[in-house]
Amino acid sequence: MIQTLCIIGVGLIGGSLARDLRRLGLVGEVVGASRSAEHLARAQELGVIDRFETDVAKAVRGADMVVVAVPLGVMGSVFSAIRHALASEAVVTDVGSAKCSVLEAARQAFGTVPPWLVPGHPIAGNERSGVEAAVDDLFAGRRVILTPIDETDEEALGRVHSMWHRVGADVLTMDPQHHDEVLAATSHLPHMLAYTLVDVLGRMQDRVEIFRYAAGGFRDFTRIASSDPQMWHDICVANRDALAEVLESFGKDLNTLLAAVRRGDGEHMKNVFTRAKNLRDQYSVESGE
Amino acid sequence: MIQTLCIIGVGLIGGSLARDLRRLGLVGEVVGASRSAEHLARAQELGVIDRFETDVAKAVRGADMVVVAVPLGVMGSVFSAIRHALASEAVVTDVGSAKCSVLEAARQAFGTVPPWLVPGHPIAGNERSGVEAAVDDLFAGRRVILTPIDETDEEALGRVHSMWHRVGADVLTMDPQHHDEVLAATSHLPHMLAYTLVDVLGRMQDRVEIFRYAAGGFRDFTRIASSDPQMWHDICVANRDALAEVLESFGKDLNTLLAAVRRGDGEHMKNVFTRAKNLRDQYSVESGE
Repeated sequence: MIQTLCIIGVGLIGGSLARDLRRLGLVGEVVGASRSAEHLARAQELGVIDRFETDVAKAVRGADMVVVAVPLGVMGSVFSAIRHALASEAVVTDVGSAKCSVLEAARQAFGTVPPWLVPGHPIAGNERSGVEAAVDDLFAGRRVILTPIDETDEEALGRVHSMWHRVGADVLTMDPQHHDEVLAATSHLPHMLAYTLVDVLGRMQDRVEIFRYAAGGFRDFTRIASSDPQMWHDICVANRDALAEVLESFGKDLNTLLAAVRRGDGEHMKNVFTRAKNLRDQYSVESGE
Repeated sequence: MIQTLCIIGVGLIGGSLARDLRRLGLVGEVVGASRSAEHLARAQELGVIDRFETDVAKAVRGADMVVVAVPLGVMGSVFSAIRHALASEAVVTDVGSAKCSVLEAARQAFGTVPPWLVPGHPIAGNERSGVEAAVDDLFAGRRVILTPIDETDEEALGRVHSMWHRVGADVLTMDPQHHDEVLAATSHLPHMLAYTLVDVLGRMQDRVEIFRYAAGGFRDFTRIASSDPQMWHDICVANRDALAEVLESFGKDLNTLLAAVRRGDGEHMKNVFTRAKNLRDQYSVESGE
């Protein structure tokens, strides 16, 4: 049971978590914090938070659990702002999509990675954003990856683990570096491809027609290109090394495929398509799709 | 009203069309044709066709409407095989995803593009294939593009148009070359990206983990990588010029993005992501997604 939960950044993720914890009676009070009073008033109106503060230092006072759900680019400034205001029993966690950068931001703000900081990443969410996009049960059956390091306190880890577990998530721990590599491949790279595809098509002469004749596959394929540009900018900057590596690897393969298409090398194409289909079908079965 | 419909290739598209026409009482008899008697017997068992022939020349005898729903790579051999067997009143159409290659196959088989051949492409279907994947109402509200040329007979065009219109499709005509460019951009390129992505991830060391931590966005994004490799091989060979052009254009943009990620150029990233998001949101509104 959390006494006072402080959610910094009441958007899709922070808002959905607050909704679940309140609904399930797992929290005494929820305090929302962000720079926009208007946005916070809306969150209060929607019943997502009990009260709010636009000053994050004030917001965290007395909270035993602090969830930092802001874009990666402002993680460091939030850490600095709450540094001297946290209660002694407070546990802090975040929901950022890249974890090494969060640890680095913590090192810069706190001088070291504090034992009560538990970096986390719920693999949930969609292309929408803002508190209006927050829903019940967003995390049910979804994975939440926690990336504790040697310095992380076991009890703090347990409290964060328990919070996510109680809203229905499947909670796992992973090395931060490994997390960043895996997510670069399965999430950050696909977003780059979807954004680039829509941007390329948007520059084509017959762009209106292009989109008019797009079929269902295109719709699914490009849905993630509706994701928040600022958030994805921050993710790409934060996880640039791992992302650059998979982007380069993808680019090489695409170039090889382009050469095969040009020379009509059906053998090469069929090998790539067959390997991919087999893997995707297997994934489909395993994930119960 | 079609008296005798001959469907050559009773798979997802051919089978779904036959189902609709039979159910709606728009056809007297449906004759299925393909090389596999076993497959055809299954289609008959499922009530998709009335009878079948494994010899396509026999199958088209007496048919007033012939739908060639085979992979693009065998289009030419089917045309050659039916050349002398078609009834004088027969109209022939196809469902291939690239149209210039179908016209070229017709020129080679018939010496010229016959007036009774109406090239067509239903923008429907999904990653599944085979007669078991055939369903009712697959074409309801979907677009069917017909690509008649100067030689095409108006009455033949009208009969094919009417057939698709009656199963609920929104039927349009387009220049074949233009069709191939538009489809290369909206369909063939996305399939190349999905296949390549899954193939690249499949080669990564921690491939099991990669797929285990894939989120919903990944699932949607890679669904089309489960599409039939042989069919897509044929499409890529048939539409190689248009496909190579958009692939190259995409590859250049991706390289520029990679360079921006490497040097942490947030400005470039945000511009790409914002343009793409705006376009995708607009498409989402226009397509009633």
